[in-house]
Amino acid sequence: MNPLDDPIPPTIEWRDGVVRMVDQRVLPGRLAFLEATTVSELCEAIRTLAVRGAPALGVAGAMGVALAAVRGEDPAGAADRLVATRPTAVNLAWGVARALAAGDPVGEAVAMAAEDVARNRRLGAHGAALLPHGARVLTHCNAGGLACAGFGTALGVIRSASVRQVWVDETRPLLQGARITAWELDRLGIPVTVIPDARAGSLLREGVVDCVVVGADRIAANGDVANKVGTYPLAVLARHHGVPFYVAAPTSTLDLGCATGDRIPIERRDGAEVAQVAGTSVVPSGVEVENLAFDVTPAELVTAIVTEHGVVTDPYLEALARLGSGGEAGAGR
Amino acid sequence: MNPLDDPIPPTIEWRDGVVRMVDQRVLPGRLAFLEATTVSELCEAIRTLAVRGAPALGVAGAMGVALAAVRGEDPAGAADRLVATRPTAVNLAWGVARALAAGDPVGEAVAMAAEDVARNRRLGAHGAALLPHGARVLTHCNAGGLACAGFGTALGVIRSASVRQVWVDETRPLLQGARITAWELDRLGIPVTVIPDARAGSLLREGVVDCVVVGADRIAANGDVANKVGTYPLAVLARHHGVPFYVAAPTSTLDLGCATGDRIPIERRDGAEVAQVAGTSVVPSGVEVENLAFDVTPAELVTAIVTEHGVVTDPYLEALARLGSGGEAGAGR
Repeated sequence: MNPLDDPIPPTIEWRDGVVRMVDQRVLPGRLAFLEATTVSELCEAIRTLAVRGAPALGVAGAMGVALAAVRGEDPAGAADRLVATRPTAVNLAWGVARALAAGDPVGEAVAMAAEDVARNRRLGAHGAALLPHGARVLTHCNAGGLACAGFGTALGVIRSASVRQVWVDETRPLLQGARITAWELDRLGIPVTVIPDARAGSLLREGVVDCVVVGADRIAANGDVANKVGTYPLAVLARHHGVPFYVAAPTSTLDLGCATGDRIPIERRDGAEVAQVAGTSVVPSGVEVENLAFDVTPAELVTAIVTEHGVVTDPYLEALARLGSGGEAGAGR
Repeated sequence: MNPLDDPIPPTIEWRDGVVRMVDQRVLPGRLAFLEATTVSELCEAIRTLAVRGAPALGVAGAMGVALAAVRGEDPAGAADRLVATRPTAVNLAWGVARALAAGDPVGEAVAMAAEDVARNRRLGAHGAALLPHGARVLTHCNAGGLACAGFGTALGVIRSASVRQVWVDETRPLLQGARITAWELDRLGIPVTVIPDARAGSLLREGVVDCVVVGADRIAANGDVANKVGTYPLAVLARHHGVPFYVAAPTSTLDLGCATGDRIPIERRDGAEVAQVAGTSVVPSGVEVENLAFDVTPAELVTAIVTEHGVVTDPYLEALARLGSGGEAGAGR
């Protein structure tokens, strides 16, 4: 495919002083765009998942600082509000910090979006080398173009490889797998089947899945991976069935200041996201609902982490430290 | 609790020549009752899951044959249509066969409903002895009073024991855990928290779950268990974390003619159950959706099977054969 001819529109763009985003809340029914003209509007878009996905949040954070700059708002206050919207994805704080440190926050944010796409293309090429020809892949949530400025991380690997079949977990409660990943893969012409999250276990048991590929919201220094809730059970099931489990994430997702996964803050979202489906109550009123957005997969269950600098494998501590300081992956291929 | 004072209404009853059922499709929003006056109406109620759950389907099958008898329909034809509605739960065929063989199908069906409740009370007492005092239990789907004529199997164990906390998977696509199990436990005054199916893995990793208790739709001669999709991954995760995994099912769920779980037919339901949520499309049109209703958990992952005759453990083949021929469980306590 011609790289200029991407069937997935840009997730987030700076246009004439406003931030223009695909409104991911209304997919797949409509492809609509949302414009944030203030930091508050952008914070609301982030909180409600109009824009989501760790690499996209990095760019969104930077563009938020850029918005503050052009509107003459206090950049430090804007930065704090942006970072507070979602606690788990470390890219958000990273993007905010980069724009804050730049002399030209607008130029920096625009450059970061372009860099993100280029980085994901390199990441995709590294990851593709891990997959067999005609691979059958299971993925979870959305780590596609719409989780990034473009191209995708887990889906970037999938679209860079020769893939025969993708299964995607629908990913309750907000159904990013069913709504967004299926939409992207369908647009890319890659065969995709949506399954309930609870079906992944028996699918792996059938022996039809060659590998699991997911994204990440934060990777601790030891290789523990925080990602959308439901990632950890997939990793256990993949190990139980001898299926490789790959995490695809740019190095901006690395948090070397976080020694292990249990230090990663896990976002607890409103139980109504589980209890209300399309406006209908599916839980008796008064019954408690728990809605943790992420879980942590320990490094020992991760076959490899695919970054834009190459592929790293266990032991992760040294390999990730090298990447975090800008080096290349030792195990890159 | 006074056994006559059950806060869960009878799932299915014979009343003046019609079959009256709780309409489980509209819970928890409404507690409504549905009457089937013909075999066709009852078949439709079974197909659309107005009445569901393996033990309840046994009674429904018998009541269907009773309906045919009082309406002068061909009983063999009615039996075939009833059995064809849902392929996985073996209790349906068992209930149909029992009513068909009886001189008085109505009396037999009514007796079977009463027997089912009594059986579940015995089962509950056997299972309760396995649980620690103040147990914290994870369950899946609904194996409660509404999955039976009354009292429940997995929930029968839970309500018979001293249970401090139950987590229930919402159980996509039809949300029987969120809608029905949460409703039953709330009525019973047992603390319950609804979680997305994908959250069970990290919950088990937290070490807060004492045991997993689920029901069954069919148990093969070797102890392999077919149950609602999502049961198998729970069993793998429970094993990974050293948490006991109990299956609660009456002996009518045993299919000794089925040597192993891979012989159990797994019902494939309409993909629209996954793709449409409360009338809204959550999957792009044209994208494939797979909706297998059940999965199979191999016997080696099942810590114990709790029946009305007692508790059996691996090796299951002999123990289940003894139960199937009406004997008591060797490991019963």
